[in-house]
Amino acid sequence: MSQEMTRDESIRKLGEMIHGINFAMMTTLEEDGKTMRSRPMATQRTDFDGDLWFFTRVGTPKAQEIAKDRHVCLSYSDPEESCFVSVSGIAEVVKDQAKAKELWNPAYRAWFPDGLDDP
Amino acid sequence: MSQEMTRDESIRKLGEMIHGINFAMMTTLEEDGKTMRSRPMATQRTDFDGDLWFFTRVGTPKAQEIAKDRHVCLSYSDPEESCFVSVSGIAEVVKDQAKAKELWNPAYRAWFPDGLDDP
Repeated sequence: MSQEMTRDESIRKLGEMIHGINFAMMTTLEEDGKTMRSRPMATQRTDFDGDLWFFTRVGTPKAQEIAKDRHVCLSYSDPEESCFVSVSGIAEVVKDQAKAKELWNPAYRAWFPDGLDDP
Repeated sequence: MSQEMTRDESIRKLGEMIHGINFAMMTTLEEDGKTMRSRPMATQRTDFDGDLWFFTRVGTPKAQEIAKDRHVCLSYSDPEESCFVSVSGIAEVVKDQAKAKELWNPAYRAWFPDGLDDP
């Protein structure tokens, strides 16, 4: 992205690019600090303000990896539109029931059968 | 992948899973050894024997990053088939004109206008 963009412009541009791409591959660093691993994460359909939110279960390897090393990389791919986006950032596992309720989508029951009661 | 699989079975299974996914996002580690970055790489349409080959130009940031740290992660996504694959491995920049000729596809001129004469 051009360095001439302001932060707000960059955020708006990135939001436009990833809009409609339903899954990101999130890469984390394993305990050795070298081996990388990725897994699909469902993109939230909210206005993008610079933070990207995903649902995950507490205790999964990705949550454990983030607890040890917060660096992550998100890869968005839309080959039909020749749109590929790499987002490097810092992740945090947030336990916030109000936020979870705001972002919840009934389709997520496929991954979290207990809904918002799932940890 | 199940640990009960032999290496050959794992390779065959992986080859089947990524078959037809035209682009992988390749994540490398930047010089700080922490920040990850990904970019799309065109998948080669060859029989998969355990090695994955990609074309790149010498001197690109990804080639430089691999020269410093050979760990990479390849993310394959086919959301329509609910197929998402993460491949962790060790990369090497290989300058082999015969191999390049074997793998070359005229469509790659979009990225390498000089064809196989491009470094």
